[in-house]
Amino acid sequence: MLINRRTIRIEWGDCDPAGIVFYPQYFKWFDAAAAALVAAAGFPRADLVERQGIVIPMVETRCRFLIPSRFDDEVTLETTITRFGRSSFDVQHRVLKGADLAVECSETRVWTRLDHTGPEKLKSQPIPEAVVRALSQDGA
Amino acid sequence: MLINRRTIRIEWGDCDPAGIVFYPQYFKWFDAAAAALVAAAGFPRADLVERQGIVIPMVETRCRFLIPSRFDDEVTLETTITRFGRSSFDVQHRVLKGADLAVECSETRVWTRLDHTGPEKLKSQPIPEAVVRALSQDGA
Amino acid sequence: MLINRRTIRIEWGDCDPAGIVFYPQYFKWFDAAAAALVAAAGFPRADLVERQGIVIPMVETRCRFLIPSRFDDEVTLETTITRFGRSSFDVQHRVLKGADLAVECSETRVWTRLDHTGPEKLKSQPIPEAVVRALSQDGA
Amino acid sequence: MLINRRTIRIEWGDCDPAGIVFYPQYFKWFDAAAAALVAAAGFPRADLVERQGIVIPMVETRCRFLIPSRFDDEVTLETTITRFGRSSFDVQHRVLKGADLAVECSETRVWTRLDHTGPEKLKSQPIPEAVVRALSQDGA
Repeated sequence: MLINRRTIRIEWGDCDPAGIVFYPQYFKWFDAAAAALVAAAGFPRADLVERQGIVIPMVETRCRFLIPSRFDDEVTLETTITRFGRSSFDVQHRVLKGADLAVECSETRVWTRLDHTGPEKLKSQPIPEAVVRALSQDGA
Repeated sequence: MLINRRTIRIEWGDCDPAGIVFYPQYFKWFDAAAAALVAAAGFPRADLVERQGIVIPMVETRCRFLIPSRFDDEVTLETTITRFGRSSFDVQHRVLKGADLAVECSETRVWTRLDHTGPEKLKSQPIPEAVVRALSQDGA
Repeated sequence: MLINRRTIRIEWGDCDPAGIVFYPQYFKWFDAAAAALVAAAGFPRADLVERQGIVIPMVETRCRFLIPSRFDDEVTLETTITRFGRSSFDVQHRVLKGADLAVECSETRVWTRLDHTGPEKLKSQPIPEAVVRALSQDGA
Repeated sequence: MLINRRTIRIEWGDCDPAGIVFYPQYFKWFDAAAAALVAAAGFPRADLVERQGIVIPMVETRCRFLIPSRFDDEVTLETTITRFGRSSFDVQHRVLKGADLAVECSETRVWTRLDHTGPEKLKSQPIPEAVVRALSQDGA
């Protein structure tokens, strides 16, 4: 599977009064990393949204927070896809502090078409074969 | 059990280019609602942190996103405690759009003492009996 | 002029490791308050955007931060319009801690039509007479 | 003067329903860039805060937003110091889209000592000579 790796330097504004990352911030990084993974496979988010009306909202997430991170810490975020269904897929995120697992998150996202004819109109779509193939290839 | 209810009007800045709530925002509301629940039981966060050095970080969260919400929508967030352990407790959040369940989240938090002698020093503590008793009372 | 007043309870997640509001957060409140003011005059943002394709982006802001606020503080945000031009208007925000002015901000916004034919296509429009009249009325 | 340059790829979650950067997000980048500039001169924020109890809050900001940016856009943020006073200094941020100036911001920050004996106790301090010297040197 493709893996997306990024180094994150924790900023002052990512942290709360206890001096550790305010946890909703992790989900911003996860969302960007999931999009970067799909983009790395040849499907940049801007193209998906603007040309095809495709978004990939999260429908479920399960996270464990093992080690807090503080500002000026540098962590590595590793993101990969662990399952493909017909219209959904599972993404795994691992935040590493050095060799230690700090946060582990597994989320389910759905390949979805925006429908501007009304609010809340999000319709799941089969994931295109080309997307599955590109994201299933080896390498980092 | 005590229940904390709050009405949330979705703001423009809570939403993403698809016009729906960007999901990390839900966790900001959940965090504030968990703190409000503990405060309603007589233990405001500011007192806990400043006088007792107590914070209540999340160690695990499991969420399902069933119905997206759009800006100007009004939703209700209901928060309650579903389990007390020795030093951890489970919080349940339910986002309702009218009578429909839009988001469901269950999280585990730990009663923790800040230790300023070094980074990452967070030590779990037994939850005080008075806190358990206050949060276990009936009523909304 | 119409004045929009709202009470804001500072949340833990609004604050930085110094324990005071991380200043970008003020701008989120200002943006929501400006929209609430226009909505109170009869022009809710959702209608403007979805039916008319109108957004009101900020083009200039000037803020002074006089007194920091901490989590669990309660502040009052007062928002009013101080000038109407042909297609732009000035909004003033004042954050009060009790009787003291904590933050003062004056911003210029432009009545703008979204144009989906291309990126960055935002075209200023004359502010409708009805909007100016409604926002110029007395009362709170 | 030292200049801090960073490339920013606009993320989906940085943008609002109009598809452009929600403007409070710019201030998060500005805050991190100001800290990175001071760190590049040899004074990392973590050291300043933890060893010396020094923070550098903003007291005034003046920004003009000239060109909106959309998600997947890549912009360059250039940050430099334009004035040193006794305890305050001015920081200039320029967001460039290619060769075009998209956002221009000038802010005043104060060298301040955290005082944990009470809330809101922030006391301005003379900026150390070594800091002024390091930040005044040429080069990028």
